Amino acid sequence: MIYLTEEDLDYIAVGAAILGAGGGGDPYVGKLMAKQAIKKHGKVRLITADEVPDDEIVIPSAMMGAPSVMLEKLPNGNEPENAFRSLEKYLGKKAYAVIPIEAGGLNSTIPIYTAACLGLPLVDADGMGRAFPELPMTTFSVGGISATPMVVCDEKGNKMVIETVTNAWAETLARTATIAMGLSSMIAIYCMNGSQLKKFSVKGTISFAKAIGKRLIEANKEKTDPIEGLLEVTKGFNLFEGKITDVQRDLTTGFVRGKVLMEGIESCKGSNFQLDFQNENLAGTIDGIPVALTPDLITVLDKEKGFPITTENLKYGQRVVVLGIPCDSFWRTEAGLAQVGPRYFKYDYDYTPIEKLAAGRK
Amino acid sequence: MIYLTEEDLDYIAVGAAILGAGGGGDPYVGKLMAKQAIKKHGKVRLITADEVPDDEIVIPSAMMGAPSVMLEKLPNGNEPENAFRSLEKYLGKKAYAVIPIEAGGLNSTIPIYTAACLGLPLVDADGMGRAFPELPMTTFSVGGISATPMVVCDEKGNKMVIETVTNAWAETLARTATIAMGLSSMIAIYCMNGSQLKKFSVKGTISFAKAIGKRLIEANKEKTDPIEGLLEVTKGFNLFEGKITDVQRDLTTGFVRGKVLMEGIESCKGSNFQLDFQNENLAGTIDGIPVALTPDLITVLDKEKGFPITTENLKYGQRVVVLGIPCDSFWRTEAGLAQVGPRYFKYDYDYTPIEKLAAGRK
Repeated sequence: MIYLTEEDLDYIAVGAAILGAGGGGDPYVGKLMAKQAIKKHGKVRLITADEVPDDEIVIPSAMMGAPSVMLEKLPNGNEPENAFRSLEKYLGKKAYAVIPIEAGGLNSTIPIYTAACLGLPLVDADGMGRAFPELPMTTFSVGGISATPMVVCDEKGNKMVIETVTNAWAETLARTATIAMGLSSMIAIYCMNGSQLKKFSVKGTISFAKAIGKRLIEANKEKTDPIEGLLEVTKGFNLFEGKITDVQRDLTTGFVRGKVLMEGIESCKGSNFQLDFQNENLAGTIDGIPVALTPDLITVLDKEKGFPITTENLKYGQRVVVLGIPCDSFWRTEAGLAQVGPRYFKYDYDYTPIEKLAAGRK
Repeated sequence: MIYLTEEDLDYIAVGAAILGAGGGGDPYVGKLMAKQAIKKHGKVRLITADEVPDDEIVIPSAMMGAPSVMLEKLPNGNEPENAFRSLEKYLGKKAYAVIPIEAGGLNSTIPIYTAACLGLPLVDADGMGRAFPELPMTTFSVGGISATPMVVCDEKGNKMVIETVTNAWAETLARTATIAMGLSSMIAIYCMNGSQLKKFSVKGTISFAKAIGKRLIEANKEKTDPIEGLLEVTKGFNLFEGKITDVQRDLTTGFVRGKVLMEGIESCKGSNFQLDFQNENLAGTIDGIPVALTPDLITVLDKEKGFPITTENLKYGQRVVVLGIPCDSFWRTEAGLAQVGPRYFKYDYDYTPIEKLAAGRK
């Protein structure tokens, strides 16, 4: 049996932030919450999707909204449990385990917090294998699983159960509620049974995040090249090395949309990189030519130590490396691309897998 | 036992629109819905608050949002029942009866529709004795009854159960949901027991609406003065007779805020009337001096036939009579005025009862 230790949390938080592709929140608050909960309630057992009986249910526990807001509007600590238990009560069923909805600094650690508080195991899987900005952007949704009934809770004690005719309506109603609650909320959503879990989840995300974070933290301790280590463990691509020359953000829609411009340094000198994001990094181009497109993962790392920089922390003057990682094969299907491909986000590109784009550059 | 007939519905709809004080919706859609439901499911029994056993529960059924939107975005007919039954299910209790939340063309007739569909009696009482724009503006709220758990449903089949820490939060979350649903929704709210109902409701509103509507419709049939008849049955005041010279509306906040200017005619010639509204008519002044202030009722009637004109139907050139009616004594308490007095709506007046203002003019 595998139990998550406090040290594991350091690894998972930073590894998940790399898989978060610029989104999913800064790992700081989530990690603190999860560590505290493990200290108080005991270690969390990590189980595989296969260990969940077909007729038992699991429930994703997540934060919704702007992660940066959570650093000032702190959770009271009861919301994740409150959302989870309220959904169980509404369904009239007890959950077998907690599962993350996405990989990200916050949304990989909050489910650990929730699992610790509830005394439940955590499933080593999620619904994205990365982070995405909208609720229907999950492999669960592609698999036909309803996002609702879902529960939205805030830190003041307000709560709502939402049942909708489509997952797009769940996004609309939960988003407007989250904005009204002050831009962040805790949710319990996408209840599914073990059989659905096995078919429609991205497996092993927590272990993957842990392996990534471990490699990065150890490389820094051992003074080996952290970027090299990350490329190896993620089977990723070094897309660009540059200096950030401009960051443009627009927050008017409850998301953070914008772009980052970089000037090449070292081997990339003379080239320019543009990174487009909507909470998550979604499209990277060098001198106008795509090198990585959603749903493949694009993560900005600080050049020196290799730690991920989430979109809200990108700043003029930072020297960075842009890492690209192939997404889960789920997303490369027609149904997957319809939900999260470049055209869904209004980018004027057809999706081409990152490995093909890399091969084209050689 | 009293049962509501189809003819009663004609009376109630128009009488309630007069009590709606410019808000609560045009009686047309609600009356059609209620008549149809009575044809299909049978007559609705009207009971007094005293007939409800102390430990049984009653639930108000209402429309939320902009009544004018409902004329184009028609209900599918299941939402009121869906909201009501969903709340019962959430509470784990069956309701003894349906009750209106307010008096108004739509919100006095929709509960009749709901009662007919559910085969439940209707309580001859409500939570305002008039209409008001926000959910916490009820005698129930003044009595400390929680608006939540409440259910919000739309015509597409979306539904939410809301539980909040205050009734103001219920307003915020249900309002943003209603706006997202397309500006109108059906709600079930303010569940209370018979003992609370007896203490904190405005009694006899349905009968009062029926008496008002009957008097008005009969006066028109018998060619007697409809305004005289209304003044008598409502114990109201003829505040002004005038011609509308300007209507200003602002819809930006999900409410209809604005003002109407009138030029006096006949006995009022030479004077000017200003009517301020937010969904409902809230303050009336003649040449700058208040003659009626919220929570007292102000209703604009067409001068010729005495039928009420809701705020959304006020137009330049209409010849009207402004009717003032004293509000329920509940609203004249300190707690009542804190919730719905002129200062709550940011008008720069202290509340003075309409009868006193009238006496001051003599």
